Formats: sequence, C-alpha cells, structure tokens
Amino acid sequence: MARSEKEQVLAANAAFYAAFSTSNLAAMDALWSTSRDVAVFHPNWQGIKGRDAVMRSWATILNGNEVTDIRPVGARVILSGKMAMVICEEDLVAVRMIATNIFMDEGGTWRMVHHQATRLPEVVPDPTESKGRKGQRSSGT
Amino acid sequence: MARSEKEQVLAANAAFYAAFSTSNLAAMDALWSTSRDVAVFHPNWQGIKGRDAVMRSWATILNGNEVTDIRPVGARVILSGKMAMVICEEDLVAVRMIATNIFMDEGGTWRMVHHQATRLPEVVPDPTESKGRKGQRSSGT
Repeated sequence: MARSEKEQVLAANAAFYAAFSTSNLAAMDALWSTSRDVAVFHPNWQGIKGRDAVMRSWATILNGNEVTDIRPVGARVILSGKMAMVICEEDLVAVRMIATNIFMDEGGTWRMVHHQATRLPEVVPDPTESKGRKGQRSSGT
Repeated sequence: MARSEKEQVLAANAAFYAAFSTSNLAAMDALWSTSRDVAVFHPNWQGIKGRDAVMRSWATILNGNEVTDIRPVGARVILSGKMAMVICEEDLVAVRMIATNIFMDEGGTWRMVHHQATRLPEVVPDPTESKGRKGQRSSGT
C-alpha cells in the first residue's frame, strides 16, 4: 500500500536524524531543498541562511565529534499543500533538544527547508520522589 | 488593492510580536489556532503542546515583567497551501533571539500553530575594529 503523505514526511524526518547520527554529509546534502531559500538555526550559532552556508554548517558539525547518536522522539506532523512541519524532541546521549523541521514536497520528494533546535533545560527531579534520580540527570547546562 | 497572502502572513507575524510587546493576552489568545494541535517551544522551557498549556505559558510570560519590547527583524516567509512559515530575528532590548513561527489559514485568517524561539549567542566583536563596542554588548549569556 502506498505510504500516506504524513508517513512520507516522517520518513524524511527520520532520514534527517539518520544522516545526522551517522555523520553522513552526502545524505544530509541530498535531504535539503535545492530550489528554496533554506535556513538552519543550530543551538548556540547565529542564524544561518542560504544553501551554501547551511551545508557548510553541517560539514562543520558532522565532521566534528560532538554527536554520536540523535533520535527523534514524539514526532508530530502538520501538513498542508506542499509544506509540512514536524516537531519532535531529539534525544542525544546526555542532552535533550527540541526541534522544528520544515519540509517541502519537491517533485514527489520531501526535502528540508528549515531546521531549528533548542537545548531543553534539565528536568528538575521532584524532591518528594525516591532518591537516586539525580545521578541520571545530564551534566552541565 | 487586496493584500497578498505573504503580506497577510507578515501582518499576522507582526500582530504576534505586537501582542507580545504589549503583554496583551487577549490578543495573543485570538492569534492562536483553535482547531489545530498547537505547540510552543519557549527558550529555557520544556516543550509545550496543546492549546490550554500553550495559553497558560503565555499568561505566565505576559503577566511577568520579563519583556518590554520585542520586534521581528528580517522576516522571511515560505507559503504553501494553507500553511506558512516565518523565520525572523527577535530584537529585545538587550538580547537577540531567533524564531520559527508557523501559521495556518483558518477560514481566511492566518492563525499561529507553532512558535519556537532560541536565544542567539552574543556576537563577539572583531578586536581589530574600533574600541568601545564592548559596552554595547548585552550582558549575560
């Protein structure tokens, strides 16, 4: 059975995180629109606009050793026409981010036009709950 | 002459920042979709989903005294069908944020379904440039 548009968008979103996790710059490049004004807002970077600058930022990030594994959690899709928004949490090893990903249907393929990720604050454990949770919290802020 | 769809979206985006700047909770409420699954990702908050929780977050923020003036700068729109994305910088008095705002056309009115804002890092001044710029930088990180 043919996949629904929503399933196709979720597959594109999963492919984005797979390229990210495996530091696959060629796969990342193929995911991004070549016909639209693209942008990316990485945490702790200035906003980046234009395909060349966006791809340079991915080269810097994927060639670094900052990320080993990043998985989308709780992805939610809104679709209309040839545009789709996905919001999800990003689970890294010791950090949680939250992201907005925008895709456009380009000739039957959903391609990314925008990604914004923000680091989430640590969840403060409830002091009335059992001890030992503090050790599970990520370090740093 | 009738406004283009893009102009209507930019007007909705400007109305969002006007409601924010004037701490007008009723105007903020009217801007948000009542028929879609809405979400908001404020800086240093957990991700918030669902209209009731989104509006409670705005009540907290607008009833606080954190923000006096917030202006969108360099807004860029991508539109398709009944969905529109606006990306822009947000100039506050001493801080710059960057935001992704998603609107849906609901019966001829563009209503917000999602907002994500991230604080931008300070721009490090070029030490080869003239002195005195340091005093213009915002404090804190």
